[in-house]
Amino acid sequence: MSASVIYNAQLLPMHQGATFDLRASAALVIEDGKIAWLGTHDTLPAQYQSLPALDAEGHLLTPGLIDCHTHLVWAGSRASEFSMRLHGASYEEISNAGGGILSTVKATRAASEDTLYDLALPRIDALIAQGVTEIEIKSGYGLDLDTELKQLRVARRLGANRDIRVHTTFLAAHALPPEYSGNADGYIDYICDIILPQAVEQGLVDAVDVFCERIGFSRAQTERVFARAQAFGLPVKLHAEQLSDQDGAALVAKYQGLSADHLEYLSAQGIQAMAEAGTVAVLLPGAFYFLRETKYPPIEALRNAGVPIAVATDANPGSSPIHHAQLMLHMACTLFRLTPEEAIAGMTCHAAQALGSQQSGQLQVGMDANLALWQVKDPAELCYQFGVNPLIARWYQGRCSRPNK
Amino acid sequence: MSASVIYNAQLLPMHQGATFDLRASAALVIEDGKIAWLGTHDTLPAQYQSLPALDAEGHLLTPGLIDCHTHLVWAGSRASEFSMRLHGASYEEISNAGGGILSTVKATRAASEDTLYDLALPRIDALIAQGVTEIEIKSGYGLDLDTELKQLRVARRLGANRDIRVHTTFLAAHALPPEYSGNADGYIDYICDIILPQAVEQGLVDAVDVFCERIGFSRAQTERVFARAQAFGLPVKLHAEQLSDQDGAALVAKYQGLSADHLEYLSAQGIQAMAEAGTVAVLLPGAFYFLRETKYPPIEALRNAGVPIAVATDANPGSSPIHHAQLMLHMACTLFRLTPEEAIAGMTCHAAQALGSQQSGQLQVGMDANLALWQVKDPAELCYQFGVNPLIARWYQGRCSRPNK
Ligand SMILES: [Zn+2]
Ligand SMILES: [Zn+2]
Repeated sequence: MSASVIYNAQLLPMHQGATFDLRASAALVIEDGKIAWLGTHDTLPAQYQSLPALDAEGHLLTPGLIDCHTHLVWAGSRASEFSMRLHGASYEEISNAGGGILSTVKATRAASEDTLYDLALPRIDALIAQGVTEIEIKSGYGLDLDTELKQLRVARRLGANRDIRVHTTFLAAHALPPEYSGNADGYIDYICDIILPQAVEQGLVDAVDVFCERIGFSRAQTERVFARAQAFGLPVKLHAEQLSDQDGAALVAKYQGLSADHLEYLSAQGIQAMAEAGTVAVLLPGAFYFLRETKYPPIEALRNAGVPIAVATDANPGSSPIHHAQLMLHMACTLFRLTPEEAIAGMTCHAAQALGSQQSGQLQVGMDANLALWQVKDPAELCYQFGVNPLIARWYQGRCSRPNK
Repeated sequence: MSASVIYNAQLLPMHQGATFDLRASAALVIEDGKIAWLGTHDTLPAQYQSLPALDAEGHLLTPGLIDCHTHLVWAGSRASEFSMRLHGASYEEISNAGGGILSTVKATRAASEDTLYDLALPRIDALIAQGVTEIEIKSGYGLDLDTELKQLRVARRLGANRDIRVHTTFLAAHALPPEYSGNADGYIDYICDIILPQAVEQGLVDAVDVFCERIGFSRAQTERVFARAQAFGLPVKLHAEQLSDQDGAALVAKYQGLSADHLEYLSAQGIQAMAEAGTVAVLLPGAFYFLRETKYPPIEALRNAGVPIAVATDANPGSSPIHHAQLMLHMACTLFRLTPEEAIAGMTCHAAQALGSQQSGQLQVGMDANLALWQVKDPAELCYQFGVNPLIARWYQGRCSRPNK
């Protein structure tokens, strides 16, 4: 039974959604990896007063950051495609040169599981050093049985070997593999009958996702995957309304989905459905920036409808090759005009909600002691300044590390 | 006399401007802080073959990055102003709450020299860890004799205590101090007669800059400062055409200026004047991003006119609170559509030109051994991927460090 106390902290519990419920001169007790007590230091119960103690020196203590939408496990590089595009190459030329998502699929299929793990490690370590304690990782660069399972195993292994909680999301319905060209329904059969059942059987799936889009899968195809997920008792989420309005948000809400993600083209009716179902809106400013999107997600309408807003990196080689959680706080405010309260809620309490986690994203007694201590006084500093990493220390299930020392 | 060799590197000398002159299986010899030799490893002269050697393992060796436009030395915080704006406050409300540049001036005046130094240190250390070996630092948050000199002394001290070359730029003509409200010409007198001469006498000034803008100083006022700089034999540069076309680029070109910076509203005639004078165009994508500017600098016209393009952070608390050189490579490509060749030239050879440095920005025999070794094969990776810091090691005047270990 291990226990310790952090005192002289400014505490930001984030248990009231997108508001700053700051508490000065606070203390927090960690016991067996959980938050055992928190309050003002002068009310610390006697039983905790002789514990090993860390002086936070007035710095800001928040829940660890949660990155609730990533595609972290992939091989290959799209740098040459990026360069070609900047040199004026057309999409056709890039496609002829073997670019696009299928180049990532090809490289990911060809990579060994160890190689994939080694490639993903510096990405997750970068996020850890930024204060991230929980992350979602999707499959979707295999598009066949072996590689989808391989990606998910790598995701599990990352969670086992690093001080971070990993949620796996099954996203075989990310793109159409070349073997099924012209036969998307056949590929959906393959997903529902073969890949998903085996992935579930091997304990590799925490949630199920689909890319519902004109260039992805239709509503009907999405719904087939959702129905199968539901039969397995798995929660669903959706890449929805990124490039056009497919009414995907209403669809995922119908299945009590955890989240609808992207949402630049979200309609009023989609918002209404999400609000009723409690589905989180996951905004991905990195993809918005990288794709130079000009259509904004309907932030004000989401706010007014009371839909919880999360923010994530969408780290992926095609549309958001950015492994930086703090930059997403900055971009959420700068590009999307979220308030600092909303941005930080978006990577703590609301991100936890988008992952269906009851045990993290807030500082509450009984929750996991997943914490980040920051060299700032005002929480808004976390969103305003970028480049100097303010993370002093982080705790994952009570274990403290200082990844930047 | 110290010497060493780096071998098995991919060398990117950057001595042909914005092109990648990559050399595989290369070696580079450092002697007394300078580059003594470079070429393919199998042609390494016998005299160098017994030197201490570092195996670069095929990774990319480039000139160290150069950040040629920063305002790194300041006190206070503008996070609350940032937050107020996101909560819908008007500029008037923010100004009434004491926000804006004058809040930074007030805090910088009040801060001791040691405090200013301590505040700037993590900023410069972050840039160092990103592979920056040379930086420009402007004054301009003092707007009075004591504080302008204090800022410049801090800049010199940063250069003395860290493995980085610091160029100081005198920017007292950054904004109008409250003491001179309604009397901009009087403030220009004070600059020309008092502040600049003393700063020069104390050896604190490498170049002189002005903010030429409707909300800054007029062309005539700018020219008075330039004439004074010229009398001291100092090179000039200009914050030009950021918010409107003041024909500032032509003005700084007339004085053979090192650079014109920002340039969103640059005219064809300004480009022509810069091309003739050899004045570098310094692009600042961080400010473009942070201010949500939609008007782009005329990149294609600058290219066609053969104006060298540099890229810098513009690190400052008001319009680019971003201390990240690698992010500027990413944003230069993503937002401004520079090619990777142009972006990297913009933070190496062209940045050196913008600082008037003959001894850095390229890998050439006789130049300073300011180098960065990156965990990438393709230089475009430096612009395409962001968040995992690819810096393996850096050398400043031949001294090697690994700031991320
Ligand atoms: Zn995604
Ligand atoms: Zn500036």
